[in-house]
Order: sequence, then C-alpha cells, then structure tokens
Amino acid sequence: MRMIDIIVKKRNGFKLLEEEINFFIQEYTLGNIPDYQVSALLMAIYFQKLDSDETTNLTRAMMNSGETIDLTLINGIKVDKHSTGGVGDKTTIALAPIVAACGVPVAKMSGRGLGHTGGTVDKLESIPKLNTTLSKENFIKQVNEIGISVIGQSNNLVPADKKLYSLRDVTSTVDNISLIASSIMSKKLASGADAIVLDVKTGSGAFMQNLDDSISLAKEMVKIGLNMKRETVAMISDMDQPLGWAIGNCLEVKEAIDILKDQGPDDLKKLCIELGAYMLLLGKRVDNIEQGKEEIKNVISSGLALETFKKFILSQGGEISCIDNTDLLPQASDIHPVLSKESGYIENIQANVVGTAAMLLGAGRMTKDSNIDLAVGIVLNKKCGDYVEAGEPLAYIHSNDINKKILAIEKLVSAYKITQRRPETRPLIFDIITKDTL
Amino acid sequence: MRMIDIIVKKRNGFKLLEEEINFFIQEYTLGNIPDYQVSALLMAIYFQKLDSDETTNLTRAMMNSGETIDLTLINGIKVDKHSTGGVGDKTTIALAPIVAACGVPVAKMSGRGLGHTGGTVDKLESIPKLNTTLSKENFIKQVNEIGISVIGQSNNLVPADKKLYSLRDVTSTVDNISLIASSIMSKKLASGADAIVLDVKTGSGAFMQNLDDSISLAKEMVKIGLNMKRETVAMISDMDQPLGWAIGNCLEVKEAIDILKDQGPDDLKKLCIELGAYMLLLGKRVDNIEQGKEEIKNVISSGLALETFKKFILSQGGEISCIDNTDLLPQASDIHPVLSKESGYIENIQANVVGTAAMLLGAGRMTKDSNIDLAVGIVLNKKCGDYVEAGEPLAYIHSNDINKKILAIEKLVSAYKITQRRPETRPLIFDIITKDTL
Repeated sequence: MRMIDIIVKKRNGFKLLEEEINFFIQEYTLGNIPDYQVSALLMAIYFQKLDSDETTNLTRAMMNSGETIDLTLINGIKVDKHSTGGVGDKTTIALAPIVAACGVPVAKMSGRGLGHTGGTVDKLESIPKLNTTLSKENFIKQVNEIGISVIGQSNNLVPADKKLYSLRDVTSTVDNISLIASSIMSKKLASGADAIVLDVKTGSGAFMQNLDDSISLAKEMVKIGLNMKRETVAMISDMDQPLGWAIGNCLEVKEAIDILKDQGPDDLKKLCIELGAYMLLLGKRVDNIEQGKEEIKNVISSGLALETFKKFILSQGGEISCIDNTDLLPQASDIHPVLSKESGYIENIQANVVGTAAMLLGAGRMTKDSNIDLAVGIVLNKKCGDYVEAGEPLAYIHSNDINKKILAIEKLVSAYKITQRRPETRPLIFDIITKDTL
Repeated sequence: MRMIDIIVKKRNGFKLLEEEINFFIQEYTLGNIPDYQVSALLMAIYFQKLDSDETTNLTRAMMNSGETIDLTLINGIKVDKHSTGGVGDKTTIALAPIVAACGVPVAKMSGRGLGHTGGTVDKLESIPKLNTTLSKENFIKQVNEIGISVIGQSNNLVPADKKLYSLRDVTSTVDNISLIASSIMSKKLASGADAIVLDVKTGSGAFMQNLDDSISLAKEMVKIGLNMKRETVAMISDMDQPLGWAIGNCLEVKEAIDILKDQGPDDLKKLCIELGAYMLLLGKRVDNIEQGKEEIKNVISSGLALETFKKFILSQGGEISCIDNTDLLPQASDIHPVLSKESGYIENIQANVVGTAAMLLGAGRMTKDSNIDLAVGIVLNKKCGDYVEAGEPLAYIHSNDINKKILAIEKLVSAYKITQRRPETRPLIFDIITKDTL
C-alpha cells in the first residue's frame, strides 16, 4: 500500500477502505509517512469529506494508535463526559462528584492543553497538594472504593491525534467535522468509557461558532459512538458568553465548589443538572431524564455531592480545608473592578474576547511550555440580559501583574456590548442529539 | 505575512495577491516554509484553482527564484521551442539546426530529466565527445558566430520549481493546469527567450492524455506568455502513438539526422515543418506560415540545415564523422525483430507502453541517479494505419541485455492493437493556439 495512492483516491472523491485508513494512521504514527503527504491528504479530506464509515474507521484507527485504557475492573457502567471546550467551562469539576454521588462511577482522565485557561487537571491543581498522576492500578482502586477519580491523561493515549492535530493546526485543515469528531471520540474511546455524554459548545467562545456546524459535529460524534457500540448523547449548549461567572483556574474551582454547595451561577447549575441527568440515564441509574434531574438536585441539596468531592480530593492527597474555606485557595494580589461607562442592558459578552483577556492575565498557555498562573482570572458581575448602571462593576479582574492587568481590562471592556433595549437572550441548551434524533 | 493565512485564503476560494505568491515562493525556496504547509496549499490550489493573474504571478515568482539568463547579447529574436514531452520526441535535435539555418538564432538550454528516454541533452551526448556544458560566455559567442548552441540547463534555473515539482510528485498535486503551466513557462522565461513555440502533446504517451486538457494547458501557457510580454504560440500535437520510428537516445539522434538529410519519418518531418514555420514567424524571418514552411523545406533540401548541425556539433567538440555515417554512433549488441502474430491493420500503438518498454531496456532514468544506456531502444516498423502480415516485424528491439530484452518484447507487443478493418487515423496536429485564438 502506498500513501500517494490513498491521497489521489481521496482527492478524486472516492471512499477510503478501512485498511487504507489503518495504513495511513499506523504508518504516520510510526513516522513512516512524511508530514507533507499527510497534510495533502488532510486538505483533500477537507474538500472531499469523509463519510460516516470512513469517519468511524479513522476514529478506530486513531484509538488503536496507542495505549487504550481498560476500565472493566471498575464495577458499573463508566459514563464519560466531554466538552468541546469554552470560556469558563468548569462543568467537569462540579459534575464528576455529583454523578459519582448518584452512584455512577467516574473514572476520568482529563487534559491540560492550550487555551484561555488550563484544562480540568490544571484547574484542579489549584487545590494544594492534589496529586493528579495516579498509577492505573490506584486510579481503578480509588474509583471502586469511593466512586471517583480524576487524573491527567496518559501521554500514550492516541499518539496519532497528537501528530495529526499539530499538523492540522499549521496547515488550515482543522475545520472538518470528521477530523474534529474522530479526534475527540478516539480519545474518549481510548480512555475506556462505556457510554459518553458530549457537551458540544456553540457561539463566539466555542470551537464551532455556528449552530448548524455544532449540530453537525454532535451528530457525527453520536454516529461514531453508535458505530463503536458506545451509547452516546450530545447536548448543544451555549458558549456565546462565558459559562458561569468565573474564568481562571482557581476561580473556576471555587465556582464549581459553590455549585456543590448549592450556590453558584444558574447557567452552570442548569447545565450540570441537564448533562448529569443524561449521564445517570446512560449509566442506568435512572429510567428517564426527569428522574435523573431529581437525583442530581438531591445529591447537591443533601451535601452528598460536596462530601464525594472532599473524599476524592482527600484520596488524591489534596488539602480539603480549602473546600470549606475557598479563601485558602491561591489568591491574586490585586482584585480590580471594571466599571461600566454607561447604563443599559448587556446585549453580548463575547466569550472568545473574555478568554483572550484571561489569557493575557496569564491564566492560559500560549505555547505548550507556558506556565499558568492559577490565581488570576476574571469574575463577571453582569451577564447577558442584566441591567448595569454607569459606574457599576461589569466584572472583577484578579491579577498579579499591573501590565497584564491593563491589557486585560482593555480587552474585557471590548467584549461587552451594552444596549438600551432589553435584549433577547440565547437559550442555554439548543438541542440534544441522541441515537433516536440522529 | 504568514503561510497559514495564505493556505486558508486559497482553501476558502479567494484570490491570492502577487505579494502573497511572492512570499510563498521566495520563502519556500529559501527553506523557510516547511513542505507540509506547501503541500496543503498545493492541494487547496488543486481544488480551488488559480486564475490567470495568479498563474502569471506564480510563474514570475518562480522565474525569479533563481538565476535568469540574459540573452540580449545575442543578435536577433531568440525563439525557444518547448515540448511537454512524449515518446520518440526528438524534434528539437532536428529543428534547432533547421531554424538556425533559416537565420533565427537558437540559444537552447535543454534538460535531462526522468522519463522513458533521456532528455535532449542526454540524446545529443550519443555523439562522441560532444560537450554540452559551455560557459555562458562561450554559449552566447557560439550562437552569435554560427547561429546555434544547445547546452544543458543550468542547475540554478528556477530552484522553486525543482522543490515544488518533487513535492507535487509525492502529494498527488501534479494535475493542475496552472501549476503545470507555471512550471514549464517559468523555466522558458528564465532561459531568456524572446518568444516561445510550445508543442503540447496529447494522447496516451503525453502528460495530458485528453485533448481538452491539452488545449486548456496550451491556452494557459499562451496567456502567461502574453502577460509576460513574450509572444507565444502553442501547437497541440499527437502523442497517442510514438513520434517517428525511433525511441531511444542514440536511435533518436539518428532519426533526427535523417530528417536533416531529407529522409526519416513523415510525421516527424511534418511536425518539424509546422513548428519551425511558427518559430520563423515569431522570429520575424517570414511574414506568414506558408512562407515559413517553404523556408524550412528549402534549408532541408539544400543541405544547409545538415551543414548547420555539423557546425554546431563541431563547435562543441563532437565527432562529426558519425553524422555522415551514423553507424559510428553507439550500437546495441543485439537487434531483435518483434514479429506480428496476426495479419491486420495497426489500430493503436500505445505510446506510454512503448515508452515503458524503452525504459525496461535501460533507455531512460527511473530515478535521478540512474544511468542511461544510450544505444538501446526500439525502432518501429509499423505505425498506426499500416497493414502488417503475420510474421512481419512490428518493430526492432535494440538491446544490450537479454533479460531486459525479454521484458521489453513482452511490453512492446502489448502496446500494439491490430484490427481487421482499416482504422481511422488521428491527426498529427489537433489545434494551434495563438494570442488571436485564445
């Protein structure tokens, strides 16, 4: 088999066979196919697309390109949740202990990654002494004992995706539904999940800004899940403004803890309940969504979810005192209110611009080797639809560096759009894709 | 300027600016842009095409990527001729002295290249002691003195094309009219021609097998010529069967000498007259094509063309005795007739298959470093439309190796298609594209 023949086949609009896709992924992972041939194939795929079979075969080949995690030693149905990412998305931190408290085992491997803030694992490391690198044995043991563990993703998971993603990033071949879907799903499948709940974001702060694209991506991933015999549900949720109030690693952990304390922002709480209900349904803890939502609300109001979170943190060596008293978490040296210059309704808070402001403060990584400042970030005081008086704070900037602060304020102000007429608000959840609504 | 932005612009179907094309070509030539970004751009170009402006700008940028030859010290209008290549195409070897004999200066730089046989320079080196590496000064001096010189192409000519072509070859991005046209025309323009006559081949042995594609390529190149202020004419000629009888370096030189002696195959002679007439017209030696054809016929029948060829060979150190007596040229050890198994008309001789047979004998290069056997090759005895009796030779195989001979015979036989009904013959010249017929 020759890579050149695979390129020309796809270029000419023909369907690639499973063995051709396997050859491409295996040999590329081994370093036997040069980047320049792969980028040509990726661009051909951009134009000619992959169909559902090819996408599933690509996902399987990628999944098999490295280590796959076997979670069969964990009792129960392991339901993983994945978000396509956004600004202020700390859902996993709250949702994992909530779902575990309901009896669905949470064996979560999470990424770090580039972005406006760190990934879930970076955020959790705001909790002093927390260890996120357990051995596989201890990881499984902990899930069987207390129902939950969250650790950093193995570096050996889906090496094909690491290579492909870096290449796509520099060759304008990121924007293809099949490539995006296979990248996400191969990692979920390699992580050993039995069932998957996807949170596909849509809006200015999302990977997919346009609703139709988000729905297409969601459908493609649900199809892959079904083809791979993993029950999969995808929710399309809003990421046009940031989720919740907090953006920044430690600030987001605080907000997730607030949710566990039955406080915190309404949008985040609602999203946790909706996503959690599907996780319970797929985990066969409930018979329908309404029952799932009740269960979730119960473990929050009863304190069981918070208790589960503490057990998880304790079990991984973290200091649980800072859960009761979040002031013990890392604090920025300066908290600066950003005041509104005018009165009116908040029409729009561009999530991507807020994300950039957080990045400018040092909350995220610009390159793989950047250091993250866990304490810094932004806490919104006004969200879309709120009324603000001139002189009232729109948000608070938590910073450790005056120059970064100045840049971030300017950026943040530019994210807000104020209007005199009460604006229409976007829904939090746009659509839910299941095998029945494909 | 960033390469990634150029890729995404073309991917999305927008027109690239001259400075973007210059940036891409300059920086790629310097090694500042990686192959994987260039192959992604090439594939995007494959799908989104380049328009006429972009193609001209690409051609100019490529021309300027290396050395450009200044022929202004040569008196008269320098008219270059270029063939897109085919099997048995020895036209340049005959045509150069013919045109020079008519008073149009021929300052030709010619390639070696991969293929079924060597390039023009390889073929000419069948003549013992011929030197094809003159200094630029001696090259120009010789053209001014005797009207003709043919030398090997400078290695510094259009380095961007060398890099791009190698990359296109391994990434399925060869088949794009703009990329092909700019590759050819950038080299012609860098070689310093004032006017260009193109011989665009069409048929099984041509780069463009389909007539419409050949016409599109011809038109694109004539457009580039006009945009670059070089008068350009393109002839579309047949390459469905080999041109003439001989395929193989030394055998083709013999056949070209036959033409200069007013002998040789009709199709080759006719093509020389047609192409030569346009060269004389563009070189302003005649006022119309008919006058051009007359001139060409005259210098052949008078022996002036043969005389000019001898002067050229002598001036570059070659042994001219082998021009009068071509038996002094390299000879293969074995000449084997390939006999027809059946009687009938020759319907088809697949030029590409004959080319492969010649390659199997050792007449061409499979890789850049392959050695060429100048003596070996094939001499056809029957061409399309001819009648053959069972047991009559279809062709003669000139070989130096019995194993290669066996392979070549088998291949050659498979190229011939014999039919019982007199077949329709293809025209030699399909179309002529000038600025007036664009």
